[in-house]
Amino acid sequence: MTQLQALLDAVQPLDSSAMSAVQDRLNILTKPQGSLGRLEELAVQLAGIQRTHRPTATPAAVTVMAGDHGVTAEGVSPFPPAVTVQMVHNFLAGGAAINVLAKVAGAAVYVADLGVNYDWPAQLGNERLLVCKVRHGTRNMAVEAAMTTAEATAAILAGAHVADRLVANGMRVLAIGEMGIGNSTPATALLCAFTGSDPDVVVGKGTGLDVAGVKHKAQVIRRALQLHRPGSTNPLEALAAVGGLEIAGMAGYMLRAAALHCPVIIDGLISTSAALVACHLCPAVQPYLIPSHVSQEPGHQVMLAHLHLQAPLHLDMRLGEGTGAVMMLPILRAATEMLEGMSTFAEAGVSGRVQ
Amino acid sequence: MTQLQALLDAVQPLDSSAMSAVQDRLNILTKPQGSLGRLEELAVQLAGIQRTHRPTATPAAVTVMAGDHGVTAEGVSPFPPAVTVQMVHNFLAGGAAINVLAKVAGAAVYVADLGVNYDWPAQLGNERLLVCKVRHGTRNMAVEAAMTTAEATAAILAGAHVADRLVANGMRVLAIGEMGIGNSTPATALLCAFTGSDPDVVVGKGTGLDVAGVKHKAQVIRRALQLHRPGSTNPLEALAAVGGLEIAGMAGYMLRAAALHCPVIIDGLISTSAALVACHLCPAVQPYLIPSHVSQEPGHQVMLAHLHLQAPLHLDMRLGEGTGAVMMLPILRAATEMLEGMSTFAEAGVSGRVQ
Repeated sequence: MTQLQALLDAVQPLDSSAMSAVQDRLNILTKPQGSLGRLEELAVQLAGIQRTHRPTATPAAVTVMAGDHGVTAEGVSPFPPAVTVQMVHNFLAGGAAINVLAKVAGAAVYVADLGVNYDWPAQLGNERLLVCKVRHGTRNMAVEAAMTTAEATAAILAGAHVADRLVANGMRVLAIGEMGIGNSTPATALLCAFTGSDPDVVVGKGTGLDVAGVKHKAQVIRRALQLHRPGSTNPLEALAAVGGLEIAGMAGYMLRAAALHCPVIIDGLISTSAALVACHLCPAVQPYLIPSHVSQEPGHQVMLAHLHLQAPLHLDMRLGEGTGAVMMLPILRAATEMLEGMSTFAEAGVSGRVQ
Repeated sequence: MTQLQALLDAVQPLDSSAMSAVQDRLNILTKPQGSLGRLEELAVQLAGIQRTHRPTATPAAVTVMAGDHGVTAEGVSPFPPAVTVQMVHNFLAGGAAINVLAKVAGAAVYVADLGVNYDWPAQLGNERLLVCKVRHGTRNMAVEAAMTTAEATAAILAGAHVADRLVANGMRVLAIGEMGIGNSTPATALLCAFTGSDPDVVVGKGTGLDVAGVKHKAQVIRRALQLHRPGSTNPLEALAAVGGLEIAGMAGYMLRAAALHCPVIIDGLISTSAALVACHLCPAVQPYLIPSHVSQEPGHQVMLAHLHLQAPLHLDMRLGEGTGAVMMLPILRAATEMLEGMSTFAEAGVSGRVQ
């Protein structure tokens, strides 16, 4: 059995007895039954994932997976490719949005280099940077496959190894985010590959394209789709043809976290494209994913619907980095603390329904 | 000038120069402009409210305003009226949902008795209980006005006094919630009074009515509306006729917080009905309100739209107590910390747009 197949085979169904135990407790706490809505559903889901009637949302970490993209040669982003590595330095220095938001949410920030076009100096020695580079960026999908299937597989396994390491360090909830100039192009191409969506309908402005830029990006994606004909029947080939190294890494991270009974909070367009890959490789991973926000990117809603996920945060964000994902952590914490901290009707001497 | 008129006259417009200063800073931080969406809007709004280019989301408190309702005689709730005071005891003992969620969100919990049908023992001495009772519950709106306008005014001023006290204690952000068996009936009646909505369209199941119960509740509300003919031309009379003591108190709390340059995070159906009252009494209060979640109650969306407010949390909650409101605090904290903690493009050495 290949390492990839072993990764996929290790994902188990949720633990239904832990879920029932938590549902039973929720039903006797001092509130009308079901009135905490998604908080109750999240408590039950976490119980099923973590296989315990006392689920927890701490400790938590967010991993920002970074990679460069050959397709930037087509002019699909208003920012230069050098910004990928510049932003990795910013993450490591603590000055980016994800650093601030993760601190508010109580999550540790890790950065994983899956494919940044840069060689780190040997003396860097930052324990928050996990270098698992597969290659120095993808090839230009508009003219050739972005990766070989061997490279895509290596990136999936590298991402899985990141999840292994964080769970071994005691993390109980993982969030995911990314950085990679140009990566809304492969994310949208994967969306089209897996759902048959038309690029003109689902392409968005990414970091800030104007109307002409959005139209051009849709044409680049259409060209890549016509060249490679990626589809859901072979998700690994689709990922290799029009994906990205950090997208592959995020898919592997989700798969391995699920196998280790750890939830993964997904973020916006790019990380959700990795969820598409993960779920097409292994449908059993879906209940381990926790959606967070609905991005401004039009394709994101289409992806979430395809995955049967509903994201509760409507914040009109479109930054990536895991910034939406970490904002779910206080909500998960509320869901788990509710189970521990609330009194039952009997304990509090509160009357039940009379009708 | 009456005390009520003085309360209304004290609300000033937001500080546009503080808002501009914050917007200018947001535009040079290391992220595509506008990509943090509502977080950026919230940072600007808080700056305008607090009249500073360094807005803050701490310290924060949530007040649960409690009151009883004569209309429960019509059988509009599946829970007995005694649950109002039982739940106040639960809040003071720390065992209710709001206690747990406020702790996660870092908010202090206060309970204000505006009209609970109970006399507190003199020796209770709980500093988190603010007794400002106007009367022992409202009258039955289906047969007579719920309150006199003098009682409604007294409850507004009592709620204003609660805000005074919390701001004097150093609170910079206030959230609001409520407890009162039967209070989705006055809240929905106020919605109909101010927007002309049909009860059959906007009435919801409250704490858990069945289909027949919802239909009966709509008939009770229709009867009260036909009896009193409340409308937006006289918001105080509408409040007195079909409102509630805790609803009046919440309106006063919002008005006084706004006058003191303090935002108020609103919660679900009941607190948003108080926002309708406050905004119809004094339109200048609207920009001081921060919406939180969209309730399962069908009328809530109608109220929010009428007030030109969009709530970012879609958690399918319908509990009240301020449970949705406090879940906005981590988001506000993210918005303010972003201003302090993020590097600029120049500081981080990150390249800007090339297109």
